[in-house]
Amino acid sequence: MATKQLLDHLPAELTAAFKGKRVLITGGLGFIGSNLAHALVALDVNVTILDALLEEYGGSNVNLRGIEDKVEVVNGNILDEELVNKLVTGVDFVFHFAGQVGYIDSKDKPFVDLDYNGRGNLIVLEALREHAPKARILFSSSRLVYGKIQTTPVTEEHPTEPLSLYGIHKLLGEKYYAYYAHNFGIHGVSVRIPNPYGPRQQVKHAKYSIVGWFMRLAMEKETIQIFGDGSQERDYIFIDDIVAALLYTIVNGQAGEAYNIGSPERMTFGDMVDAIITTVGAGDKEYLPWPEDYEKNETGDYVADTSKIELDTNWRPRVKFADGIAEMVAYYKENKELYW
Amino acid sequence: MATKQLLDHLPAELTAAFKGKRVLITGGLGFIGSNLAHALVALDVNVTILDALLEEYGGSNVNLRGIEDKVEVVNGNILDEELVNKLVTGVDFVFHFAGQVGYIDSKDKPFVDLDYNGRGNLIVLEALREHAPKARILFSSSRLVYGKIQTTPVTEEHPTEPLSLYGIHKLLGEKYYAYYAHNFGIHGVSVRIPNPYGPRQQVKHAKYSIVGWFMRLAMEKETIQIFGDGSQERDYIFIDDIVAALLYTIVNGQAGEAYNIGSPERMTFGDMVDAIITTVGAGDKEYLPWPEDYEKNETGDYVADTSKIELDTNWRPRVKFADGIAEMVAYYKENKELYW
Repeated sequence: MATKQLLDHLPAELTAAFKGKRVLITGGLGFIGSNLAHALVALDVNVTILDALLEEYGGSNVNLRGIEDKVEVVNGNILDEELVNKLVTGVDFVFHFAGQVGYIDSKDKPFVDLDYNGRGNLIVLEALREHAPKARILFSSSRLVYGKIQTTPVTEEHPTEPLSLYGIHKLLGEKYYAYYAHNFGIHGVSVRIPNPYGPRQQVKHAKYSIVGWFMRLAMEKETIQIFGDGSQERDYIFIDDIVAALLYTIVNGQAGEAYNIGSPERMTFGDMVDAIITTVGAGDKEYLPWPEDYEKNETGDYVADTSKIELDTNWRPRVKFADGIAEMVAYYKENKELYW
Repeated sequence: MATKQLLDHLPAELTAAFKGKRVLITGGLGFIGSNLAHALVALDVNVTILDALLEEYGGSNVNLRGIEDKVEVVNGNILDEELVNKLVTGVDFVFHFAGQVGYIDSKDKPFVDLDYNGRGNLIVLEALREHAPKARILFSSSRLVYGKIQTTPVTEEHPTEPLSLYGIHKLLGEKYYAYYAHNFGIHGVSVRIPNPYGPRQQVKHAKYSIVGWFMRLAMEKETIQIFGDGSQERDYIFIDDIVAALLYTIVNGQAGEAYNIGSPERMTFGDMVDAIITTVGAGDKEYLPWPEDYEKNETGDYVADTSKIELDTNWRPRVKFADGIAEMVAYYKENKELYW
């Protein structure tokens, strides 16, 4: 699902870099990791997934439907140093997604967030340094490292003053990759992912993806609540564009660098809601004032400047929201019982 | 020792803010913490010190000579959440110095550094949030949060790309104080300390303070080795100026902000060495090429722009190197047997 379109747009020299290689995906049963796994299997890659399937996060074996027999799944925790040491041995690439997923939860679980989003990176980097110093690694960071947005489009030089512990620990992770590149020659890159959406996203609650949650509400003919006037800009990026960016960046990115990714168009929050309601053909919307607690996390308009990744890696964003959401809705209509 | 000169320069409204108050100093047996304790005792403050006296760090009961009976010392670890919760209850101010002290050691002990310089802050901030939300807290950060210096004098807006895990975790700490100020109203400030020197500094090895170590070499009539041509600028700040800055900033600083401190003059590394040899009246120097491992940590010239702290808190740097080093040498000549 979704993989063919994605694969058709990858250049031959890029896919050749993965063919026959060994890849470890931590958190590989989650939204982004599992979509990447589907793509890698199609590229003839030997994929191992490490996932703890922690109940509150988004990982699910359902996400591997169709490739269950083509990947090795290890049920284990990124904080298990011995296991991580073993799993990185002999790999060519590591995609590191294991982490606490929601910025909202990070407020109530500071130490859990530090462990999963901070220490987890240090564990995997130390493992590479000891056992696979030539392997390349990619870290899924977040646009939430920026905090309150001062000017858009946002370049990687924008100040990093995160408004959540989640954002603080993602920033910490990025600094580790820069440090290990500089001091030990570990080829790590960070990708600052904005608002992702697409098939295999957790849609059980509103905390991880607002797009997924709104799609669910619309499919259930519910009313979508918009805080404020819905005019804030967001960068909603479709999973195929993300997976392509991960592949381009782990191969072509410069060691130690952090890269924005973003969609090919500018959209407001209200436009996103309208597109979902139109695509689903159901649902309604209403406007509410901002609750106090949300305003502290409100970053203001976010639009990524993607010129750095385009220059360094040759990746380009491709999928417009209307097309991405259509594909997403089709997936969940077909697989509703697996994700609700 | 040194305290009278310092106290004479503090304005009455500042000292009044501390009189009769309860203060917790974590890492209070170390260089900066113990000098602060001497000043606070003189200001009629009820001081509690938490210190683990970890062997490899700079803490020592010797540093409390003269005020042993006037402070409470708790031998315990900053990572002991229950103990920290208990100690913050009822305090008015917390000065947080407990940490792994050396950027060099952080390379070989990544997890220890994360625990002491990262998690330790989260523990003390969570303790304040639960048990002393009105208390003010100051965090001793470092100029090493900046990494490679791009322009001098360095303002707080300079990019923060630390070259060591120590610097990365100090930056992490700063982000926590900003977050807890913003989200929970905890009045925390960070002070970015450049190269500190003065009485009560550990001089057993070269890893913590180059000034202290060079002073020891000169006192032992040894040759001081200078890597490169000694022309790099550094901001050597005397302990009295640091202690004054801590007092001014915890009272007058803005919650969540990080502040540079720095000395009243610009100096090169070579000037510093010459001043030590002159003041001690012994020792010699020689020039050597940079070893490869040191160059990776070499930040280039560092001179702090201190206009932000001067504007917000009214603190001013006061002590020139010639005067500070004279006081330091006198102290160690008198107390050599306690520190060698």
